[in-house]
Amino acid sequence: MQQLALKNLLEFYRKNEKEILVEYFEFLRFKSISSEPEFKEDTLDCAKWLKSYLHTIGFETELWSSEGHPVVYAHHLKAGQDKPTLLIYNHYDVQPVDPLYEWQSPPFEPTIRENQVFARGAQDNKGQCFYTILALKYLLTEYNQLPLNIKLCIEGEEECGSTALSKLLKEKASELKADYLAVVDMGIRGPNSPSISLGIRGIVTMDVEVQGSLYDMHSGSNGGLAYNPNHALIQILSTLRHTDGKIAIPGFYDDVIPFSDEDKKKVSWTFDANEYEKVVGAVPSGGESNLLPLERNWIRPTLEINGISGGYQGTGFKTVIPAKASAKISCRLVPGQHPQIIGRLVANFIERSAPPGIQVKVSVHPGGGCAVRSNPDSKVVRAFAQAYTEVFKMPVEFVLEGASIPIITELAQISQSEVVLVGLGLQDDMIHAPNEHFGLDRIEKGFAIIVKALENLSM
Amino acid sequence: MQQLALKNLLEFYRKNEKEILVEYFEFLRFKSISSEPEFKEDTLDCAKWLKSYLHTIGFETELWSSEGHPVVYAHHLKAGQDKPTLLIYNHYDVQPVDPLYEWQSPPFEPTIRENQVFARGAQDNKGQCFYTILALKYLLTEYNQLPLNIKLCIEGEEECGSTALSKLLKEKASELKADYLAVVDMGIRGPNSPSISLGIRGIVTMDVEVQGSLYDMHSGSNGGLAYNPNHALIQILSTLRHTDGKIAIPGFYDDVIPFSDEDKKKVSWTFDANEYEKVVGAVPSGGESNLLPLERNWIRPTLEINGISGGYQGTGFKTVIPAKASAKISCRLVPGQHPQIIGRLVANFIERSAPPGIQVKVSVHPGGGCAVRSNPDSKVVRAFAQAYTEVFKMPVEFVLEGASIPIITELAQISQSEVVLVGLGLQDDMIHAPNEHFGLDRIEKGFAIIVKALENLSM
Repeated sequence: MQQLALKNLLEFYRKNEKEILVEYFEFLRFKSISSEPEFKEDTLDCAKWLKSYLHTIGFETELWSSEGHPVVYAHHLKAGQDKPTLLIYNHYDVQPVDPLYEWQSPPFEPTIRENQVFARGAQDNKGQCFYTILALKYLLTEYNQLPLNIKLCIEGEEECGSTALSKLLKEKASELKADYLAVVDMGIRGPNSPSISLGIRGIVTMDVEVQGSLYDMHSGSNGGLAYNPNHALIQILSTLRHTDGKIAIPGFYDDVIPFSDEDKKKVSWTFDANEYEKVVGAVPSGGESNLLPLERNWIRPTLEINGISGGYQGTGFKTVIPAKASAKISCRLVPGQHPQIIGRLVANFIERSAPPGIQVKVSVHPGGGCAVRSNPDSKVVRAFAQAYTEVFKMPVEFVLEGASIPIITELAQISQSEVVLVGLGLQDDMIHAPNEHFGLDRIEKGFAIIVKALENLSM
Repeated sequence: MQQLALKNLLEFYRKNEKEILVEYFEFLRFKSISSEPEFKEDTLDCAKWLKSYLHTIGFETELWSSEGHPVVYAHHLKAGQDKPTLLIYNHYDVQPVDPLYEWQSPPFEPTIRENQVFARGAQDNKGQCFYTILALKYLLTEYNQLPLNIKLCIEGEEECGSTALSKLLKEKASELKADYLAVVDMGIRGPNSPSISLGIRGIVTMDVEVQGSLYDMHSGSNGGLAYNPNHALIQILSTLRHTDGKIAIPGFYDDVIPFSDEDKKKVSWTFDANEYEKVVGAVPSGGESNLLPLERNWIRPTLEINGISGGYQGTGFKTVIPAKASAKISCRLVPGQHPQIIGRLVANFIERSAPPGIQVKVSVHPGGGCAVRSNPDSKVVRAFAQAYTEVFKMPVEFVLEGASIPIITELAQISQSEVVLVGLGLQDDMIHAPNEHFGLDRIEKGFAIIVKALENLSM
């Protein structure tokens, strides 16, 4: 296979942009909202469209069905036994669109404004999935071959827990086996700051329920008698963290494998606190106060109270001592920490803190996920890094990511592959929010990066 | 006016019970839910029925209208200038009925089961209002006179803040002027434990809002960077109380006028912790741990968090760092404490506790109310105590009440009267809840108590 000059790739893209966007918009028009049962048919139609697209360009395709939305599985294994196999992960399902009235154009009618495509899924993950399969289409159309063996795993439940894929993993272990796994669902630091993520954090989640009396009581007639579950919850939760942001639960950090000083040097820790404040409206004062902002966000575990609820919360006032109060807690994990071990540790600490007259119950949700880390010196990371650098015409930086994609941990294990975490998302793409969008320039760059990375990886 | 033998009163009641219940049930059938706009007409119809009832028995009547529901004002001032004037307070509005499906019989179709009348308002406050006006009807029908001058103030907004009456107070000061004020909206300790309350606590309420970022954020991408408002709220609220239940805000207790040892001796402090646990399902472990349960509930101020809210609270899980979290706080007050002074004190303490990156705002609600106390040796308390003792055939006990009726503070001030807090409610009457009920025996006893108390007070 001849060397694929970047110039030719970009020329191809520009010449065919109109047709390319027609296909991209077709993909975006499916209302594949996986979490809402009324869109089950739309989600299935989207999976079928994707299967058919991949079949047309030359892939062997399957829909892996289960109770939920199907996984689109496809492979093209004609590069030969001496070539490595790359498994690519994407998802075709999208987030709900509420509140609808905040959209400037309808979420499932893709609209271009200022070189951005506005639609639900424009970026997450249909946009990133689309430039990936466009690269494969290009290679197969122009050269009738791929530089290495490719497997695609495009799931339909990333936005609602990846239940179907998770259940299928063991059964499909041989289909998923690969040398490398590219997760094309990530972002870059800025429009002109190419970056590759060397890691995502793990996660475990749990529900806390605190109960006092059997029913809500009047805070006058019972105030001073009844132990208010709101007070109990607040008292308990206030003991989980020290004032310096460190988690106060004994043993919480015991299993943490520290980020090595050597790896630290390869990562860009630059963080613009002023820019952060401008964008989110608050200074980055969370987490452990003795660490750099990105250390706190990338390589340290956290405990966040994602929800608290108790008593009357409407307009006006109700003088109630509620029967119950509750909280939702998630911990982000780093290498060494196991979600269920940390979950139990937190749960035991909380349950032991019940004051007299109050019952405390913690339900640690099953599953969760360990952290995933890639090695910056691995072949797959270097192949993508080189592609980013060439396409952006500037050196790629290594970063990490504070978020979690629990299915990736499992997928990496079952496929026995070395992971690379890539993508072209930007912080302000408004994913999961109204007016999600993705830049036309990034469809083009993504297409070129995937082609170049496959080539690099095959050599 | 001849001596009114208790025997004759009870005889009259039993002979006429059927007709009495017809009238009582008429009163109960009005859907006078003051807080729900759709029942505005029903509430007005109820006020008109009451006005007409009082007019028929010989009272001069008025409807004091404002933007809200009218106050039924009535007077009968023919006892002579040498006789004292008693102002009686009741309310004809009721609580909403949700959840409707929990009612064993429809809330506005009064139904008798096991000698209890089941209906919304059966006790609170239509039942207590009804035996009061029945006593007046009896006296005027049988004797064509009252032993003292009577003014009635029956409001229609007790369950939704008493706004109308509160606004009218100054304008109607001369109409409301009285020597004594009887608030017939209270309870007794048990079916065979007559008691009179010597006090209610005051109240002040406030809303707390804590804001971090401008919008909800992802707890992975921002965990360790953003200061979670849920954490800020919990941290702040956890500092409001010591672990022994004492309020930790400097100055909170400064203005408290302690309950005198002399008065303490007149009050019954008996409290059955086992019975409490049986009824509410939790031990009475709230409040200041070094005090008796009823001291904590009756003569000490409290700070209760009536509501907390922040982040995701639905089923399932959402890994959000919310932009905002909020709480609703009420303080019950004792004599010496002013609602707005205490409100500001708490608000300042909370606002000063904001961690970096978090904005904290407290809105103290206007109004509120001071505590009200009656003197056990006053003529009006003695008149009622004697009536209770005679009707129940056992000595009345003096108790206090942890709850608040803010309008009573204002009403006592504007009417320049000495207050007595009476009634025949029981803890398990299910007021404000489905299946509210009131005992037929208590309609009878209430009727007799009011007749006897008026007689006692006139002498």
